[in-house]
Amino acid sequence: MSSNKPIRFKKPLPEVKDLIKGIVSNDIATLSKAITLIESTKQEHQQLANEVIENCLKQKKQAFRIGITGVPGVGKSTFIERFGKMLTATGKKIAVLAVDPTSSKSRGSILGDKTRMQELVLDQNAFIRPSPSGDSLGGVTRKTRESIILLEAAGYDIIIIETVGVGQSETAVHDMVDFFLLLKLAGAGDQLQGIKRGIMEMADAIAINKADGDNIKPAKQAEVEFKRALHLFPPKENGWTPKVMSCSALKDDGLKEIWEMMQNFYDSAQISGDFIKNRRLQNKSWLTQHIELILKMDFTQNPKVKKLLPILTEKVMEGQLSPFAAAEDIIREYKNG
Amino acid sequence: MSSNKPIRFKKPLPEVKDLIKGIVSNDIATLSKAITLIESTKQEHQQLANEVIENCLKQKKQAFRIGITGVPGVGKSTFIERFGKMLTATGKKIAVLAVDPTSSKSRGSILGDKTRMQELVLDQNAFIRPSPSGDSLGGVTRKTRESIILLEAAGYDIIIIETVGVGQSETAVHDMVDFFLLLKLAGAGDQLQGIKRGIMEMADAIAINKADGDNIKPAKQAEVEFKRALHLFPPKENGWTPKVMSCSALKDDGLKEIWEMMQNFYDSAQISGDFIKNRRLQNKSWLTQHIELILKMDFTQNPKVKKLLPILTEKVMEGQLSPFAAAEDIIREYKNG
Repeated sequence: MSSNKPIRFKKPLPEVKDLIKGIVSNDIATLSKAITLIESTKQEHQQLANEVIENCLKQKKQAFRIGITGVPGVGKSTFIERFGKMLTATGKKIAVLAVDPTSSKSRGSILGDKTRMQELVLDQNAFIRPSPSGDSLGGVTRKTRESIILLEAAGYDIIIIETVGVGQSETAVHDMVDFFLLLKLAGAGDQLQGIKRGIMEMADAIAINKADGDNIKPAKQAEVEFKRALHLFPPKENGWTPKVMSCSALKDDGLKEIWEMMQNFYDSAQISGDFIKNRRLQNKSWLTQHIELILKMDFTQNPKVKKLLPILTEKVMEGQLSPFAAAEDIIREYKNG
Repeated sequence: MSSNKPIRFKKPLPEVKDLIKGIVSNDIATLSKAITLIESTKQEHQQLANEVIENCLKQKKQAFRIGITGVPGVGKSTFIERFGKMLTATGKKIAVLAVDPTSSKSRGSILGDKTRMQELVLDQNAFIRPSPSGDSLGGVTRKTRESIILLEAAGYDIIIIETVGVGQSETAVHDMVDFFLLLKLAGAGDQLQGIKRGIMEMADAIAINKADGDNIKPAKQAEVEFKRALHLFPPKENGWTPKVMSCSALKDDGLKEIWEMMQNFYDSAQISGDFIKNRRLQNKSWLTQHIELILKMDFTQNPKVKKLLPILTEKVMEGQLSPFAAAEDIIREYKNG
């Protein structure tokens, strides 16, 4: 069972060793508490969280991280619920995290809507956590990545990261998972639901969901079309050919086949070394991105920059000043500040 | 006629007002000289170049900027030569720039190969400039963007930016043009030539080149396939549906139709206001990118960072240290430096 309410810490704060002990023995209360520390903006909580993360890294445990995206209405919750139940039934321990910066005001999308994932929430082998609140994608992304480290240390076998498929979070999620699944619907409707450009090319597989009843034929047709379209894309660096399948999460149809396909991916990536290679590159890319994020924040929060940047931006947009001259002006001010 | 050799400046340097006068009257020698100033790494040249650029911006002239990309062998040079000749024959003044960071060692791809664009080079209404040399994509991109400003002030109607379609330069070129054309070949060969993922989704149009002789049928087939594939992509924000056409640059077939399609795009973007909106957003994005580039360069060139970053990166890649802890460590060092 998962615990999702924000926890208020009483002083003294928990000890690192107790937190680690609780996490590695998969004590749900401790795990929830540690994730809440990660999500906290208080300096003392963050310091403690950092120590916990460094310790969790030393556990060297590894889950299969799966990203799942798709526009609202495609059936992500039902898919994750049924897919998750299927996996826990075989004894796997699964965790579900959501990355959805737009939902931060409502304290997370997954449990904002109480009717979602009713069964999985009650499953002993499942841990579900809503999207962390945060005022920026960078912040939310960081918290999710750190939570993954904790969940791996706690021994989860599969970590599903859900994202909503219409914003900027998909690239971030793609960068933190081993496998990226795009859920689609058959028919023209889905094309107009505003999924972000570029996501199709990121997908390791596309699953046409809601392939049941009258929808089976259009779904099979969509499957053929997507296969044909993906064939025109350049091949992935690791040699994996993105797969297209159809399923009905509601009817538990096709989920087993999707999981088999993912296991094939996992096994061949482990054998070829692409799995570990991808993880190493992801780690490197997190470091680079995080450094850039901090440098950028330091710049944008500088009082002189705050004052001058909007004025220069307007001039640049109007074509009155070249972007290069403007950049030099403002950086001179920043450096003198 | 174009002038492409690097020019050595004798002191005293040319005066800004003389340069501007030469540029706005489209004096080719002055234009070439000014672009060479832009490409120079000398401080005094760059200062002069900046003044020239700011003055050119005030001219408020606007060309139609067209990006053309495609893998080596797709026929880019022939396409640009024939397409360019067709346009100059109607009295249009056209300029061709190349962005190809990989070619910097050979002083530019366009004229590295002397046989390329033989006719266009001799055309009074055409100005051709090879890829500027530079040690980074950021540097090359900046120089190209600044050259565009000069060419617009000189009254060119159409500016073609050529890029090679396999590296990182396509996104940069996409960000500096009004229209982005992807050249492809029919048949499986082209799919394996390693065009970068994501480029198909950037294209405003795809032209299947070399549609002549025995190749007409496969080209028409490819046209159908690409149309079908693009149909599955999400629509562009400006409402433009990417077009797929075939052509044979060598036989001058289909070029007129491609130009008409581009003019339709131009006209409707002007009427809807998307043209100016796109330019404004591009300007803003140049500013942001350039600020980030400078901040990043200042960081990576810091001696302490140079020493520490590879060590921390290795630890992060190995999973011994979290990217977040590493980032904080190194930024602390940088700030104290």
